[in-house]
Parts: sequence; C-alpha cells; structure tokens
Amino acid sequence: MNYSMRVKNCCQSPMRKFHPDAEEAKRRGIKIYHLNIGQPDIITPAPYFEALQNSSVETLAYAPSPGTPSLVQQMRRYYRNLGVDYAMDDILITAGGSEALQILMNCILDPGDEIIIPEPFYPNYHSFVEMAGGVIRQLTTSMDQGYSYADREKLERLISDRTRAILFTNPGNPTGAVLTEPEMRIIADVAKEHGLFVIGDEVYREFVYNDEQLLTIGMYEDIADNAVVIDSVSKRFSACGARVGALITKNRILKQHALKLCQSRLSVATQNQLAAAALYDVKERYFNDVRREYKSRRDTILRRLSAMDGVVCAEPKGAFYIMAKLPVDDTDAFQKWLLSSFSHDGATMMFAPGAGFYKTPGKGRNEVRLAYVLCAEAIEKAMDVLQAGLFDYNQK
Amino acid sequence: MNYSMRVKNCCQSPMRKFHPDAEEAKRRGIKIYHLNIGQPDIITPAPYFEALQNSSVETLAYAPSPGTPSLVQQMRRYYRNLGVDYAMDDILITAGGSEALQILMNCILDPGDEIIIPEPFYPNYHSFVEMAGGVIRQLTTSMDQGYSYADREKLERLISDRTRAILFTNPGNPTGAVLTEPEMRIIADVAKEHGLFVIGDEVYREFVYNDEQLLTIGMYEDIADNAVVIDSVSKRFSACGARVGALITKNRILKQHALKLCQSRLSVATQNQLAAAALYDVKERYFNDVRREYKSRRDTILRRLSAMDGVVCAEPKGAFYIMAKLPVDDTDAFQKWLLSSFSHDGATMMFAPGAGFYKTPGKGRNEVRLAYVLCAEAIEKAMDVLQAGLFDYNQK
Repeated sequence: MNYSMRVKNCCQSPMRKFHPDAEEAKRRGIKIYHLNIGQPDIITPAPYFEALQNSSVETLAYAPSPGTPSLVQQMRRYYRNLGVDYAMDDILITAGGSEALQILMNCILDPGDEIIIPEPFYPNYHSFVEMAGGVIRQLTTSMDQGYSYADREKLERLISDRTRAILFTNPGNPTGAVLTEPEMRIIADVAKEHGLFVIGDEVYREFVYNDEQLLTIGMYEDIADNAVVIDSVSKRFSACGARVGALITKNRILKQHALKLCQSRLSVATQNQLAAAALYDVKERYFNDVRREYKSRRDTILRRLSAMDGVVCAEPKGAFYIMAKLPVDDTDAFQKWLLSSFSHDGATMMFAPGAGFYKTPGKGRNEVRLAYVLCAEAIEKAMDVLQAGLFDYNQK
Repeated sequence: MNYSMRVKNCCQSPMRKFHPDAEEAKRRGIKIYHLNIGQPDIITPAPYFEALQNSSVETLAYAPSPGTPSLVQQMRRYYRNLGVDYAMDDILITAGGSEALQILMNCILDPGDEIIIPEPFYPNYHSFVEMAGGVIRQLTTSMDQGYSYADREKLERLISDRTRAILFTNPGNPTGAVLTEPEMRIIADVAKEHGLFVIGDEVYREFVYNDEQLLTIGMYEDIADNAVVIDSVSKRFSACGARVGALITKNRILKQHALKLCQSRLSVATQNQLAAAALYDVKERYFNDVRREYKSRRDTILRRLSAMDGVVCAEPKGAFYIMAKLPVDDTDAFQKWLLSSFSHDGATMMFAPGAGFYKTPGKGRNEVRLAYVLCAEAIEKAMDVLQAGLFDYNQK
C-alpha cells in the first residue's frame, strides 16, 4: 500500500513525541511536570458547565455548518469591543483554531504555493501547510533581536510569485513576542501591496503582561480583503477541550470557499458551541485575574531560568511560553535522558525541544520551549528538576 | 488574492445548498419538511446527557490526541461483539466520520492518486478526496441492478497504477444498498490482490431492515493491512451533534501516519468523548426499537413514492435514504420552485437533488435522495407536498 508523500514528510509533534517515554516514566512512579504543552491549569469559567447542565436537548442534532448563531453573536460583540465590526457571515465556527487553519490552508494553497511564517513557529503549522501541499518560507528571527519579524525588507525578500500569505502568531507561540501597532501596520502594508493574505493567529490575544493593547489584524479597514483572524476559546477561557474556534474574515470569496469546507464536515459540536457562547459573558475581571496569574508565573520561570548556569532566555511579552537556550547540544536527547535516566525528588519534567519550532535545518537544537501553564509552586519544582538535570547531564 | 484550484473545484453540498431559499420560505411562514439531510428525529439515549451532567471537571483540558481511553475501550467491546478484536491503538477517535475521512485521504492520496467509489455516493466524499488532491474513479451503479457494485470485472477495469483505495458506504448512502458477505469478500479479494486500501464507511451499520447480518470490512484477517473502517456515533445513537467518530485500522504504518495528523489538531472534544463512551452501554433493545421505527418509515415512504405517477424507486435495504426518479427534467430547479413558488397546506418539503451524488456529468438530474428521518406522520405530509408539487409543476 502507498502513503502520501505529504504525510510521510509530516513530523511528529515536538510537544507530544515523548509521550511514550513519559508514560513509561510514570509507570516507574516518577512524577512529571508538564511544561511541554500549552494546557493551562486555570479553571474554566463556570458558565460553560452551567450552560451544559441547563441544556435540555433531546435529540443531539447537527449545528448549522457555519456555526451556532448565538455563539457567532457573542464573538461579534467581543470584537465590537475591540473596535471591529463583523457581520454574521464573517465568522465561521471551527473545531478549535486548528480546524480554522486547516480549512484556510486548503482554501488558499495549491501544491507548491508558499506562505511566509516567522520562525521559530508553532510546529503544527508544518502539518496544516504540508497537508495542503504548501511550502513554508521561514523568516528566521532571533532572541537577541526580540524575535522581531515586522521588517519590510526581510518580508519582501521572501516574497515570490508563489507567495500567498503571511502568517504570524500574536502574541507569539513559542517566542512570547507581541507586535506593536506600528509593526502590525508594516505587515499589513506588505500584504496589501503584494496582494497576500495576512493571517493573524491571535488565540493568545488577552495574554499580554506589560500594558500592551489588545490588537487584531482585523482592525485595518484598508486590508479587509487580505486579513484573516484565527481565534479560539481554548486559551482565552482555558477551555482547550471544548474544541471551539473560529475562522474570521471579511473577504467575501474566501468566506464562500471556506463555507463549502465547513459544510463538507457538517458541523462543530452543538452543545459545545452553546456552552462557549456563555463564556463570552465573563467580566473583564476574569481576564485581569488570569493575566496577573500568568504574569507571576512568567516572572517565576524567567527568574529561575536566568539564574541557571549556561541558560539563556529573554522576557516574553505575551502568550504563556518562553524559549530558552540550554547548555546541551541536543535538547531531544536531553529530554529523553530526563525521562529515562533521571529524577529529582521523585520527579522529572518535560519541555518541547526547540528544533521542531524551526524549519531551517539545525536550528533550535539547543533550545527548548517551556509553557508556564502550571502554578508558581509547580514551576519552581520543575525548575529544580531542570537545574539538577542540567548539572548531572553535563557531568556525564 | 489567489484561491486554491481544489477549493474552486469543490461544490456546494446538495444537502445544504438550498439553505438560503429554505430560510426565505420560513420567513414567509411556510413549514418545511426536511428530507434533505440525514438528521434523525430519534431521541439521543439519556446516558449521553447523564454523563455530561455527572462530569465534574474544573479545567476543560485537551483529551489525548488518539482519543479518550474509556471511549476506545467501549468501541473495542462493541467490535468484539461483531467478532473483531482491535487493539487500543487500532482505533483513533475523530470529530465524526467526516474527520476520519479527511485524515485518511490525507494519509493515502497524493495529487493525482485515484480512489474507486461506486456512484451515486455521499457527496462530501468529493470534498475530502479533492482537498487531498485525489481523483474519484466512479463505478456507476443503477437502481434496476440494486445499485450493486461488488463486481470483480467492473472494479478491476477501474484500477490503474495510481489507484490507492476502494471506498464504499455500507449500508449505502444514498442508495440503501447493503453488501452481502460474498459481495464483501469479492471487494476484499480485489483490494488484496491489487494492494489497495479497502475503506468501509460503516456509520449506518445497525440500520438494516431485512435480517441482514451486521458485517464489517474489518472482519477479514487476511486483509488486516488493507482494511480501514470509518465509524461514528452520529447515526448509531442519533448523536450527530456530538461530533465523535473513529478511524479504525490494524495497519501499523497507516496508524502511525494518521496519529501524526491527530496530534496536529490536538484532540477531539473531551467531554463529548466521555459522553459518547456512555452511549455504548445501551442495550440491544435500543437498536431493535430504532430499527423497527426506521423500517416502518421506509415502508411508508416507499409506499407513497411507489403510488406517485411517474416516480420510480426501489426498496432500500439499509441506512435511512431512498433514491427516487421524479418525472421532472431537473430536480435542482424543482427544489428551487418548491421552496420559492409552492406550498401545500402551508408547507413544502426538501430533498437532496440527485446530480450531486454522481461524478458522471449529467447523471442523476431527474433523481432525488430522500432521508426518511422523520416520523411516519411527517413523512406522509411531506409526500402529500411532493405529490401535489409534482402535479402542479408539470401543469406549468
């Protein structure tokens, strides 16, 4: 039997590829601090579960393919507060931001078409672009320049006649970089002048820690046809398991094409959409509390990493990830060793090895992404493990 | 901006493309009998909702990418009752059968690769194959031959060096055809000899009305590497809005590739999987009751259609659809007229026009698919509308 070239080229997720080793360590009674995936421990707001409890449906029918109107209305209201006025049919509800990206890539990429993405980037972009037959043209960024990528010259150098889009995560995963408004305008201008889609994966929008504004690429009226926003309730409301996201655009043709793909998979889960709609009623205080909590976690992990011999990192401005360079050659091998041959006070820890966040071969091999999604106490313990682990590993 | 050739080639769903006309008719106060989509009115078994009510989760986290173990266990038990022994990792949980098909097509089709599907077929197969870059080679079947397709010679005539798989829906959507065991064996043999995947979309398995056995293409041990089963709780338990399905195979390499794609979209909705697991505890009596109900609906619609002037149809053996030839040139135009210019006792009705179920150009234009998913009384009224509509339409 034959398998597609695309799926053969598709890599295992760096966040999940050590899952078997982790299971094996757990079987040996070792506790694992999971800083490898962006799964927050923050409690999901009660209205989600209350909406489920109060639902009195008898036949669990398909929802409308474009999404449940009450949820779309709630998202419109949310965006009006950000200053952007979306029509009902500008917002297509998807199974998380993941499905929004899959649908979008299938709409805009033919085999060989290119998409510009700053690296390091969220590794699943590989899969979504690869499955659509597309090619990522990476704009390499660096820690010492704050992972900045809003540079006209660097962007234009990557544009060819096959370029279809510029995609960025803002706030950034894995870098924590947050675009300023002037930076966003630069990217918007480049997209506009070259007739490209400009895709803002903005699922971490609320997670900014230094009084940055909540911005969206959808706010520029002059690029309404270019702009596409990827959104999700997963991180915003700590509701990853709801699988509710959205593909948002004012581009009429793109909407029509995306709707066909939404229809082909029938609908997003019906009750999950009703429950997600209730999430949008939470008050501003919720976000302030969550922001304060993550800021304290960020400060904790930054303090600990900065104090470790040979570890290099920079303050992330947003999202809940930090990239760090470790004093090892290969963080894949180090992760494997941490799981198979090391423990500290009966525990070990997981990060996402850095190479999977880069497309450029060889890049990121001594880097890791750490998700500061656990409480400060757990982060402290995970950092104890990392510090002791690095010491022992380098004594070998 | 550019859009992919694939999405431009992708058609609107024949089940959903008249949605705007239907909305407009409803605004004029017209009641619509929906025989266009496979959305049953059967009540979802209570254990689904009870499981949700009893869930006491605080943080709605991602589920494991391959699926929640308790649900996988329940499916294994279900298949053991059918005589097939699956390992835990043979079953990947997906967002409905739709996502299972999307993942599968991305795993096995490169641009230009071919897949054999008997026509008429479920129209969304078009989208899933098209998005993967594949090409459908249709095996045309006909009502007067019972829509049969398990014919070695006809299958082999379609096989080329680009053929990767044979896909069938059994029981059939839209035809209601049900494979006998010897027929299934023929298809299995052809797949085996030519090294092809053989994909059974078996989401209607329980819906057979003439004492047919519940079979699955997964039962043949000699084609364990070829066989892939698409499954779902949507129809089996009238839980379409749960969006829980499965991609099932013993093929080790296919499992590994499919798992990568499961990981890239993180997980299926967490609580929905736990609730779906509870569905598998329903007793055999549930299926007997549902089967009796659908059989009575089938008999009702068959009796009414058979009595209409110029309408041709045959008894469907399974699923809950019937294909019928109507005495009109173009069932698309007739549907539009039924929604915009006709009503009978304040009501009109919808079917799925036939052309969308064929790949061969021109085929099916005078056909419709009717879903007998409503109670007998509603089916009677829908048939009153159809009968009166056909009469008036042909008087114009």
